[in-house]
Amino acid sequence: MINSVIEEYRLKIDSRLDMLNALSDQPYDPVVEAGRYSLFAGGKRIRPIILLEFYKLFGGEDDCAYNFACAIEMIHTYSLIHDDLPCMDNDDLRRGKPSCHKQFGEGMALLAGDYLLTEAFGVCAKTLGLPSERVIRAISYLSSAIGGAGMIGGQVIDTAVSIDSEQMLFKMYSLKTCALIRAAAVCGVILAGGDDESVSIAENYAENLGLAFQIIDDLLDKEGNVDALGKPIGSDEKNDKTTALKLLGVERSRALAEEFTKNALEALDRFSGDASNLREITQMLLVREK
Amino acid sequence: MINSVIEEYRLKIDSRLDMLNALSDQPYDPVVEAGRYSLFAGGKRIRPIILLEFYKLFGGEDDCAYNFACAIEMIHTYSLIHDDLPCMDNDDLRRGKPSCHKQFGEGMALLAGDYLLTEAFGVCAKTLGLPSERVIRAISYLSSAIGGAGMIGGQVIDTAVSIDSEQMLFKMYSLKTCALIRAAAVCGVILAGGDDESVSIAENYAENLGLAFQIIDDLLDKEGNVDALGKPIGSDEKNDKTTALKLLGVERSRALAEEFTKNALEALDRFSGDASNLREITQMLLVREK
Repeated sequence: MINSVIEEYRLKIDSRLDMLNALSDQPYDPVVEAGRYSLFAGGKRIRPIILLEFYKLFGGEDDCAYNFACAIEMIHTYSLIHDDLPCMDNDDLRRGKPSCHKQFGEGMALLAGDYLLTEAFGVCAKTLGLPSERVIRAISYLSSAIGGAGMIGGQVIDTAVSIDSEQMLFKMYSLKTCALIRAAAVCGVILAGGDDESVSIAENYAENLGLAFQIIDDLLDKEGNVDALGKPIGSDEKNDKTTALKLLGVERSRALAEEFTKNALEALDRFSGDASNLREITQMLLVREK
Repeated sequence: MINSVIEEYRLKIDSRLDMLNALSDQPYDPVVEAGRYSLFAGGKRIRPIILLEFYKLFGGEDDCAYNFACAIEMIHTYSLIHDDLPCMDNDDLRRGKPSCHKQFGEGMALLAGDYLLTEAFGVCAKTLGLPSERVIRAISYLSSAIGGAGMIGGQVIDTAVSIDSEQMLFKMYSLKTCALIRAAAVCGVILAGGDDESVSIAENYAENLGLAFQIIDDLLDKEGNVDALGKPIGSDEKNDKTTALKLLGVERSRALAEEFTKNALEALDRFSGDASNLREITQMLLVREK
């Protein structure tokens, strides 16, 4: 049931992403090609789907929010491209394919990330059919969530700070992983005209979902299936990354992932609308294999 | 006279930039520090001043446009940081100081560029005192001007395309250099509520100013004063860059810079308001030494 819902969303998101990142016949299009390569490498589109589901939960007509949904996915992709670069994690594989810089060279991968990030904000600004005040508020929220006190801040901790406590680890996860999921949920609420209390609950949901999501990611990196994951197992260990697994062990990690998932589901209980899709997605992410 | 006008602007812009990029006591602040290092390395603030002057020309109250003016400078700085990276131009010096990656490492320089670009859009969205429709339209224009069909497209030509004709060279200049200046001028017009015809004239002005500006840059790289420039002379030649100078020679380059400056001044003649500051800035940039 939920799989067909996700598949339907995925097709619409991909078709809009395709249109928003169309190749032209200009000589400068290798950067669009590199961006598209990573954008269509098989992402699950979880973040845009979360945005669209929150938007619907607050009565939004879903087509109007597709630009923001696509922008969130473009931003997610930019972050992966830059994260894979040799000066960051230096990862050669992403979703079973050569990472962007292995395929197009470092310079073009750098520019492809810049391109996706830049165009994402333009795509948001080109949202039609919604009050301008909401669009601006959502752009402002999005920028904070992925900026220095958000996703980029998480990257900085991940690359430059020695993580030696549970508190620091979860701070890093909160910024690096949860912040963009939080932006997806909250932008959905804002665009649909939800109130401040709903924004807070959406933030709480996304924070818990993001933490569960990241811990499962850590577990899959250790115990997952190479073919399903599309990348080598054990890359965290190879890169000497401090993960939940390393700091807390398998059992406590799994217990925490379940606890965070439970918290996320409880946050959804506080909404009066139909959150059944979000509920199923939340549960599905806990037992995913990739 | 114009120097004191510029100095007054510069102080206000720097003070706003300082506030907008304040260091916190968070552990992830090395990225803000790296961003500030490049942001306050001695830029002339020409682009934000152009934005503010166009805004005033169309009756805008200048304080409302300062966020956009600062965003333009943050975007300019991000482009320089990423452009200097080893996988791009690999430049060790910028404005007489080690470039960002020499000072903070490649990873942090990458993130500092990402940070400035991301926060710039947030700063735009946090503009107060102007109609939301104008703010969104300006964000949309800005994003296009610096995206794949704008500044980033120019970077792609510069790094990945063999430039063998005057046409291709000017296409590259138009995207890499003029596009952000065009965004500055046009955002000023849009934010002040100027009409479409005024936007077109502003585009024409900025295109010509940008071309003159870039040609003078090329000439200074060959003939300039090391101390004034703050970077080694001849870096274009070292990097085997195709510049106006290389393709057209000194005399024709200088003649073209004068012609583009004349065109820019003629565009200003078409406005009924007081463009005297813009006129002086345009002439000053033609005879600058750095």
